[in-house]
Amino acid sequence: MTDLLLRNVRPMGGPASDVLVRGGRIATPGADATGTAVEDGQGMLLLPAFVEGHTHLDKTTFHLPDWLVNEVGPRIEDKIDSEREWRARTGHDAGVASLAMARAFLAAGTTRIRSHVDVDTSGGTKHVEGVLATREAMRGLQEIQLVAFPQSGILGRQGTETLLDAAIAMGADIVGGLDPCAIERDPVRHLDIVFGLADKHGKPVDIHLHEPGTMGAFSLDLILERTRALGMEGKVVVSHAFCLGDIPERDRDALLARMASLRVAIATTAPASRPVPLVAPCRAAGVAIFGGNDGVRDTWTPYGSPDMLERAMLIGLRNNFRRDDEVAIAFDCVAAAGAKGCGFADYGLEPGARADLVLVEARSLAEAVVTRPARRLVVSGGRIVARDGALVA
Amino acid sequence: MTDLLLRNVRPMGGPASDVLVRGGRIATPGADATGTAVEDGQGMLLLPAFVEGHTHLDKTTFHLPDWLVNEVGPRIEDKIDSEREWRARTGHDAGVASLAMARAFLAAGTTRIRSHVDVDTSGGTKHVEGVLATREAMRGLQEIQLVAFPQSGILGRQGTETLLDAAIAMGADIVGGLDPCAIERDPVRHLDIVFGLADKHGKPVDIHLHEPGTMGAFSLDLILERTRALGMEGKVVVSHAFCLGDIPERDRDALLARMASLRVAIATTAPASRPVPLVAPCRAAGVAIFGGNDGVRDTWTPYGSPDMLERAMLIGLRNNFRRDDEVAIAFDCVAAAGAKGCGFADYGLEPGARADLVLVEARSLAEAVVTRPARRLVVSGGRIVARDGALVA
Ligand SMILES: [Zn+2]
Ligand SMILES: [Zn+2]
Repeated sequence: MTDLLLRNVRPMGGPASDVLVRGGRIATPGADATGTAVEDGQGMLLLPAFVEGHTHLDKTTFHLPDWLVNEVGPRIEDKIDSEREWRARTGHDAGVASLAMARAFLAAGTTRIRSHVDVDTSGGTKHVEGVLATREAMRGLQEIQLVAFPQSGILGRQGTETLLDAAIAMGADIVGGLDPCAIERDPVRHLDIVFGLADKHGKPVDIHLHEPGTMGAFSLDLILERTRALGMEGKVVVSHAFCLGDIPERDRDALLARMASLRVAIATTAPASRPVPLVAPCRAAGVAIFGGNDGVRDTWTPYGSPDMLERAMLIGLRNNFRRDDEVAIAFDCVAAAGAKGCGFADYGLEPGARADLVLVEARSLAEAVVTRPARRLVVSGGRIVARDGALVA
Repeated sequence: MTDLLLRNVRPMGGPASDVLVRGGRIATPGADATGTAVEDGQGMLLLPAFVEGHTHLDKTTFHLPDWLVNEVGPRIEDKIDSEREWRARTGHDAGVASLAMARAFLAAGTTRIRSHVDVDTSGGTKHVEGVLATREAMRGLQEIQLVAFPQSGILGRQGTETLLDAAIAMGADIVGGLDPCAIERDPVRHLDIVFGLADKHGKPVDIHLHEPGTMGAFSLDLILERTRALGMEGKVVVSHAFCLGDIPERDRDALLARMASLRVAIATTAPASRPVPLVAPCRAAGVAIFGGNDGVRDTWTPYGSPDMLERAMLIGLRNNFRRDDEVAIAFDCVAAAGAKGCGFADYGLEPGARADLVLVEARSLAEAVVTRPARRLVVSGGRIVARDGALVA
């Protein structure tokens, strides 16, 4: 692999310097740079490539020729049913969808993705198979984690547990779960299945927890109890955890303290329309919190974008992060905190890290977040993979 | 003025048709189109040009060569003081700033702007003079309303009332106000000055009301009382009106009913980080609610964009508008509802309306909002003023 020298770039908005990439990794300063390919960074901002910590690559309609008109009802059950019906009717191909989406993420500078992938008795494991094919296609360019996600629930659909087991056996990395009280209506049985599968396969857990208030706090309590009982410290993510945004601060802080001690992390989309766990108190408590789109342009929502700088902006807006040092925290949610929370290795701009890099025209990190400029250059594993927002061959 | 024929465009995402512009206005269907300039719309989406209903053209740092690092404290008073100090230190020129910002809005398809403009004892009326110069420079291309805005309060700074009076006399269109309880600490005296000036000059009112909860509801009550007493139905806007997002729905609905009967409108930025008046209940009550950025990249906030499609997206996200018919309402907040709420005449795509038009590549109105595509063409008063996001000479 040819070395790559990025001349005149400003890492994280700091002073201009040269960055040498050797063997796909960031080289130690002072390393000899002869015989390398050279890119003139023109004083651009150098960022570590981004992390999408919670999306659904299998759900997107991003690649379809027609706009999907959303006429879905307001309840979560309406959305689940609508999606299952739409997929059956259109023959939705999760492999094609996820590949298009993954490539769009890469072109916009994201080299690490955690994707929940539906497993249910209608589609079986075929969505997992589709995203596994995408993972293979993107190998070396993008690291994709799959969460086997029981979108339609486990308890009400006989056979789902077996399908989840099969999904893990065929290559999914993480066991998913969903609203143990509000959707599943039997939190203990649901969580015992989810954690049972994780324990059996030695896999981490990532649970969608939309439940608000004290109901959500109760489910979270049960999740923490099982994390401790099974010795799964550092292997559990709670996605959304909306309850942490609408229980009294004293109760929230007690839960955050337990989460910190068990190293349970939070994935947030920072939605504007409902209470959410705020980033500052989570970080203050020592809980890793990181960002994701959730679905991008799917049957659930027309919103979302493969641009993780936009997600950072939305996290900043949701948390009222106005100061430059606060906007930097919003960025961290789609960068180092995402890598830490999802367990992606070798992340960052330090020597030895995998050379996954993005160059943008911006005077500061905060400006990159608020203006989301075009990606002039994206590097993955030391290779130039995109220029000016388009993948190179 | 040459006629303009836009061929093969899809008004609001409907079927493809031709749109003829004659004498700067949208012509009646069937009008003869000989001897006109022709633009091939290539099936693009045709939208009415956008309305920015609440911004501060005088405050922006958008045009400056250096990024402004935000290190401001959390209180509203910190932000007010920080801005006054920054302006004094840098010799900030509101004329230069507002012209750059207005031009950026035009290039992104906005032809009507309501700008609050600071009037205080430090800067006197010089910010108003600057934005009045911008209004002159943009005449015929963009309609700009000025609100004489006492950003630093009226009561605590002797002479502000006289300055507001002078600002109106020199051409400001609307009398502004600011948090009668929380900042001014004497709601009756503050509002009597604001409404007194409006009554004296026969001008409308637009008051910044950030006050939450029952305090804000009390101030709003006093505003409505004065609106009725002075016969100012249809001439009052309350900006932000955050209190309507965090009082009981029953109290909210009683206030909305009074606002509807007095035709008092609401300007919202739809911030993600605090309670806000939701669009659906306001519209259901018959209260016009429309959108704006508030400041764009100023000493208060690094966020904001001259792209009103982005504001529509943020309004959609804040209101959890996911269905296409809901996203269309978010768009309406930066379009017809904005024109109605601010009193901009001759708005829309109907025959006779001023031909202020935008062409974008999108399959539907909802797609235009969620993807915010480049502005392929912007027409103001029948003239092509921008192509591909850049102003034409
Ligand atoms: Zn999800
Ligand atoms: Zn304002």
